[in-house]
Amino acid sequence: MSAVSIIVAVVNGEFYATPAFAVTAVTLGGFGTGLVRWYRDADPPEKRDAMVTAATAWAVIGFLGGLPFLLVAWTIQIDPFPVWMNTPPMDDTTVIFLNPLDAVFESMSGFTGTGLTMAAVEDKLPRSIHWWRSFIEWVGGVGVIVLTVAILHRGGGSSGSYTLYESEARSEKIHPSIVTTVQEIWKIFVGLTIGSIILFLLVGMPLWDAINHGMTGIATGGFSVHGASIGHYDSPLIEYAVVPVMFAGSIAFPIHYLIFKGELRNFYADLQTRWVFIWFTAGSLALAAILYANGQYDTLEHTFRASVFQFVSAVSNTGFGTETIGGGTDRVWDTGATLFMCLGMLTGGAAGSTTSGLKIIRMVTLFKGTAWQIRDVFEPSSAIRYLKIGDRRLSEEQAQREYTEATVVFILWILFLIIGVAVLLRVLSPGHPLEYVIFDVMSAQSNVGLDSGITGPTMPDTAKAMLIINMWVGRLEIIPVAVLLGSIFQRLNLYR
Amino acid sequence: MSAVSIIVAVVNGEFYATPAFAVTAVTLGGFGTGLVRWYRDADPPEKRDAMVTAATAWAVIGFLGGLPFLLVAWTIQIDPFPVWMNTPPMDDTTVIFLNPLDAVFESMSGFTGTGLTMAAVEDKLPRSIHWWRSFIEWVGGVGVIVLTVAILHRGGGSSGSYTLYESEARSEKIHPSIVTTVQEIWKIFVGLTIGSIILFLLVGMPLWDAINHGMTGIATGGFSVHGASIGHYDSPLIEYAVVPVMFAGSIAFPIHYLIFKGELRNFYADLQTRWVFIWFTAGSLALAAILYANGQYDTLEHTFRASVFQFVSAVSNTGFGTETIGGGTDRVWDTGATLFMCLGMLTGGAAGSTTSGLKIIRMVTLFKGTAWQIRDVFEPSSAIRYLKIGDRRLSEEQAQREYTEATVVFILWILFLIIGVAVLLRVLSPGHPLEYVIFDVMSAQSNVGLDSGITGPTMPDTAKAMLIINMWVGRLEIIPVAVLLGSIFQRLNLYR
Ligand SMILES: [K+]
Ligand SMILES: [K+]
Repeated sequence: MSAVSIIVAVVNGEFYATPAFAVTAVTLGGFGTGLVRWYRDADPPEKRDAMVTAATAWAVIGFLGGLPFLLVAWTIQIDPFPVWMNTPPMDDTTVIFLNPLDAVFESMSGFTGTGLTMAAVEDKLPRSIHWWRSFIEWVGGVGVIVLTVAILHRGGGSSGSYTLYESEARSEKIHPSIVTTVQEIWKIFVGLTIGSIILFLLVGMPLWDAINHGMTGIATGGFSVHGASIGHYDSPLIEYAVVPVMFAGSIAFPIHYLIFKGELRNFYADLQTRWVFIWFTAGSLALAAILYANGQYDTLEHTFRASVFQFVSAVSNTGFGTETIGGGTDRVWDTGATLFMCLGMLTGGAAGSTTSGLKIIRMVTLFKGTAWQIRDVFEPSSAIRYLKIGDRRLSEEQAQREYTEATVVFILWILFLIIGVAVLLRVLSPGHPLEYVIFDVMSAQSNVGLDSGITGPTMPDTAKAMLIINMWVGRLEIIPVAVLLGSIFQRLNLYR
Repeated sequence: MSAVSIIVAVVNGEFYATPAFAVTAVTLGGFGTGLVRWYRDADPPEKRDAMVTAATAWAVIGFLGGLPFLLVAWTIQIDPFPVWMNTPPMDDTTVIFLNPLDAVFESMSGFTGTGLTMAAVEDKLPRSIHWWRSFIEWVGGVGVIVLTVAILHRGGGSSGSYTLYESEARSEKIHPSIVTTVQEIWKIFVGLTIGSIILFLLVGMPLWDAINHGMTGIATGGFSVHGASIGHYDSPLIEYAVVPVMFAGSIAFPIHYLIFKGELRNFYADLQTRWVFIWFTAGSLALAAILYANGQYDTLEHTFRASVFQFVSAVSNTGFGTETIGGGTDRVWDTGATLFMCLGMLTGGAAGSTTSGLKIIRMVTLFKGTAWQIRDVFEPSSAIRYLKIGDRRLSEEQAQREYTEATVVFILWILFLIIGVAVLLRVLSPGHPLEYVIFDVMSAQSNVGLDSGITGPTMPDTAKAMLIINMWVGRLEIIPVAVLLGSIFQRLNLYR
């Protein structure tokens, strides 16, 4: 697959970059083939194996995906090729990728669809690196949909919350076979990407930008080809045009499919999508109210546009930006607005989309489930207990299972968030407001990619490593990672 | 009961204060009698009724307990009595209680054993008010032990975590009858109070101080008769002597009883007490390491003493202080040390003691339970599943019930904490670091009483009202309040 990148390099005249991508193609190809072979020989995987495989594969691919960044930077540094291969002089953005940790950070940020970057000024990067960044976010986006829709759903049982939108969509599975499901989703994903690129061209984005932002937008990845992200264009029209793309990326792809097939009238007919839409609207307005009260921006339109864009970017976990939220140690947005954005990043969009975070459906399960547990105390025990979420009526056992799943994920989420914040507080120079530290860790773990001025090439290595872990556990919604760690501990015990 | 306060006023020659306490005695006496009558006529209360009663009673008593503050301040302001009644001139600390909100804050802080205060310089308050503050914390301490040990335990079922230490102590109940249990606890509580007072006298505390600090120490209430709290004496000996009193207040009173009876060899034989002890030790050392690394205090001994005292005060939810943690908008302790204290306040001590917070046993249930839920995925489903906490082996159903109880409390706890922080951020002037805001809300909700310089007479009324609510829900461990709110909503629905 990464062979496509060689073509991109050639088309853009960046011949010096082709060996780097060739090495990557061989390495990733080898890993992929090995994985497929190992799977073919094995029995149909159990749920545990599927989880362990997903967690391991994401880690390994995230690691190997750092090769192009490292190798292209090396190539430019060493400059071993003849002139016709167009090796450019080294610049101060690309040079950072000589450090393997930064290369792995960028790759993990891409494959997890996070979009936090070690590139100080993206504009200076070679186009083949632009492409690689967008491409891995796009592939990672497909990967996570396939993972949630196909693999994790097979077990049914304990990934409780996810069964919700299936019943809402009135079909147990879209297609009986996983292979077909994956193919259908792939087609929809490609279609939506092309649609986004065309939309961006129509509102005046240059071709190269439209291709990259179309790919990273629909994948809610958020890498940009500009240091100022979407703010680069200084165009309200483009900013408003990006919002629906982020929205499209944050609703379940099975819903896209059902609408395409005519089985669902519109987005609003689906419960989960309705919640996403309501949260986008209400949250954007609330953020606008906070920022307007703070006098953050000069006009009401500017405040409204900044709020809608940033909030939708946060909840959809895309990470495109048009405004500066924080300057590291210098305050821009106040504590309240910053934490409200954190809440948005925490919830995320719909399960079955490319968004990350806890997912709105889990938040609803947490709230309704907690109220339901309380109600238990003051309702006669003889009454038939059930939990109503949307149109679904859950039996006591089912409700208990889904509530427990949501609480386990929530508790582990908070735990990893606290670990990340503690580590960053320890290694960062003092003076970063706590809410900005929380913001960047939340952004990494929810795979958002917005930052408050903390994340960047100059941050300590320990902080970079910590955020890599936060991105990884967040993308997999923690449980597969916990199962992987548990399996390792168990095995260590066995051999002791 | 508040008639005792009249005697205290008379003994100290504060005759002008007697009418205020007489009015309070009549009011509270009337309420108490009404409550007892209502109970005597009613059927044995169901669990729901017990919870609703506890939540309501605590709110009403907290409200009415503000009377002496308000009335004494009024008396001094109006000065209606002849000279022999010794009405003093008004001072700038007592004057604040002319505002009923501040009087209610002080009372709720006392009855919930919090110890946050609206008194700028406690030294200036009349002695009868000193006494009233100490007395309501002491009574509130007994109240909460009785509540958890006797009333909430009767239902058994869903107050899961609490059954833990009972089985650890190897008897389902200490005494079969609730009345006897209450009497036994009362005796132990009085004995420990007297012991604390004697200890404080021995290390050189003046009599009046020893009486008040003995009462508020064993009740882990934390009101002091000095503005600088225990730091007033500038005596390492006194500081070290206060630590074991706070420890005694943070272990389960049934354990005190079992040790007294010789049924338990020592504190260390009880699992919960062991955890409290280990957490005190490890946490104090960790805090000392952080503060020493920050160069907060001049010597290692000072760092050690400050850390042990402040951390034990935080985890035991006492709230005595010897050092300044924060100056409101001025930083003293850094973010890491402040948040580590928040963690200590969150956990609290043992269930069945006068401490508040989530309780260490719930934290253990949350951690072990979450790991147990994860293990579920990779252990063959045919295996018999059980959860081991300490020496107890919980069946699947039992474990699930206790885990759910812990998660419900945890989620509601976080929710009320977030509401408190959001409200304070909104109404406080900007410039208060987020970690200090979290600290004060956590201190209120865990009924600790330490502050970072934010809580005080000059804070906005909305913030005071919010902290009153945080103290109330925290003291009752949230579920009774949630049940009360739920019952009210339910009733409103019925009559609509
Ligand atoms: K993203
Ligand atoms: K306290």
